[in-house]
Amino acid sequence: MSKGNLLSVRGDVRVVDATLRDGGLCNDFFFTDEFVKDLYHANIKAGVDYMEFGYRASKEMFDPEKFGKWKFCNDEDIRAVVGENNSPMKISIMADVGRCDYKNDIRPKNESPVDLIRVATYVNTIPVACDMIEQFHKLGYETSINIMAISKEKTEDIHEALEIFGKTPVDTFYIVDSYGAYYPEQIRRTSQMYLEYADKYNKNVGIHAHDNQSLAFANTIDALQEGVSYLDSTVMGMGRGAGNCRSELLIGFLKNPKYRTEPILDHIEKHMIALKEQGVQWGFDIPYIITGQRNSHPRTAIAFQKAHRKDYKNFRLELLDLD
Amino acid sequence: MSKGNLLSVRGDVRVVDATLRDGGLCNDFFFTDEFVKDLYHANIKAGVDYMEFGYRASKEMFDPEKFGKWKFCNDEDIRAVVGENNSPMKISIMADVGRCDYKNDIRPKNESPVDLIRVATYVNTIPVACDMIEQFHKLGYETSINIMAISKEKTEDIHEALEIFGKTPVDTFYIVDSYGAYYPEQIRRTSQMYLEYADKYNKNVGIHAHDNQSLAFANTIDALQEGVSYLDSTVMGMGRGAGNCRSELLIGFLKNPKYRTEPILDHIEKHMIALKEQGVQWGFDIPYIITGQRNSHPRTAIAFQKAHRKDYKNFRLELLDLD
Repeated sequence: MSKGNLLSVRGDVRVVDATLRDGGLCNDFFFTDEFVKDLYHANIKAGVDYMEFGYRASKEMFDPEKFGKWKFCNDEDIRAVVGENNSPMKISIMADVGRCDYKNDIRPKNESPVDLIRVATYVNTIPVACDMIEQFHKLGYETSINIMAISKEKTEDIHEALEIFGKTPVDTFYIVDSYGAYYPEQIRRTSQMYLEYADKYNKNVGIHAHDNQSLAFANTIDALQEGVSYLDSTVMGMGRGAGNCRSELLIGFLKNPKYRTEPILDHIEKHMIALKEQGVQWGFDIPYIITGQRNSHPRTAIAFQKAHRKDYKNFRLELLDLD
Repeated sequence: MSKGNLLSVRGDVRVVDATLRDGGLCNDFFFTDEFVKDLYHANIKAGVDYMEFGYRASKEMFDPEKFGKWKFCNDEDIRAVVGENNSPMKISIMADVGRCDYKNDIRPKNESPVDLIRVATYVNTIPVACDMIEQFHKLGYETSINIMAISKEKTEDIHEALEIFGKTPVDTFYIVDSYGAYYPEQIRRTSQMYLEYADKYNKNVGIHAHDNQSLAFANTIDALQEGVSYLDSTVMGMGRGAGNCRSELLIGFLKNPKYRTEPILDHIEKHMIALKEQGVQWGFDIPYIITGQRNSHPRTAIAFQKAHRKDYKNFRLELLDLD
């Protein structure tokens, strides 16, 4: 049963811009202040519903000298960009299980510019993720649970995870295809599974797609058609490895007149082309097809791209040896 | 009702490599002999079912000095590459309604290396297309009818076209999304429509997708799932404007063990990277999103790319003025 159609507006849709967060993985979060301010204003003009500023990573674990500030997302740094955020757009950050000091680094919501904290977990770290959700909820935040790399997990474990998270106060379940391994048919099936638990526990469902097989946009709009409503995108697809669903594709597809692509095109012209020219690497290319088809972590393909290699056949053989 | 599944082989699948034909539109068909020979052998090794060598264009209409030989596809030129074509792969050419001298330029099949002639038509040139099909059939060829730019045609006219072509001896109806304007949902619906007539008249259905919105591969495998069996692809997606479904994606997706991606990767390493470096332009990029979303001919986006422009916002505004 498809929800909505190609001509009308679905009021439940939320576009979540993850450019700084997933894109930050490509340049160690060293975005200029001008980039971040311009992106904030571009997203507001484009009708984006949430803008994710980065990770709230632990400064005990990661050296603040080695990363730009959006790996840590201090409330003060966000505040310097958004002020009181007098806009309809909400602010999000991501907290990675095992990489953040969630007991000490999160203030109550009424002291913070952040609206939504997205908790990123693997299936084998669910209890910590539940604890984080409970805590963030008590502090007054919206939360989502982003179960990563599900293309490698057993279906019964995903069922169990959704059952567990269903009983927490989390607001949104996120489908995360970290390896860009899912075909549209699998995304439609996975969406149905997530939506079943979302209906049971009164949650939303979101999707975060990767473009390893040039399917990030297709998978996102197919999930949307099934009833998924939180849609991640990044400007020019900037994100780890092959990158994500492109904002300029997604926002141009959505029919709500509040969504406008010009501000996104503007940001591409002003900032993204320059990033590419400076050598920041991301985006669909042949090595990612190879890891995506094999349902493998893209780290080998990222290293291949960094080395400016073009010997795709060797790369494929090297991966065979990793089995 | 989906046909087949993600783990098994569908015996009716035929991969049609259109690199020389659609890719030839990017370099006026000036491929080196080595490129063509290597592609022929790569396709055989990769398990490709048909290789399209180019157009059989009229030399009265087009100056053979201004184009490479694959715009004309003389039987002799094909023969120089394939000899007796002692391989399981069949040879295809395309004949464009209004751009070929089909009464004089096609010999009987038993004198030619060609197996399949694909007739490209618009909805308003159906009678000529029927005449061509009848003639090619009498000469002993397999034929397909490729109705172009259907995203601009009325649904009732496409129904009528399929009814008319159903009564001809044509073997295969082709869905052609010339503008890269169709979303997967529309491709699934269109596939069902074509398959209804195909069932009635005992024809096959094929798909030729364009990548303007980064959907060529997604649309191709979604059509496959609906029951479409002739699947066009090109190496590295080489084709007009945003290009086509990439062979390296499609062949890596198909489960029949006869399909192998290594020979395609080999051809990319040996030839395609060099073409790109020589300045031959094709492939998904932002201006094609803009024409695709508007369901417009990509010619404006091609000109934009040729001029090495990056002012995407202006481009979008210029298109508004064309309405």
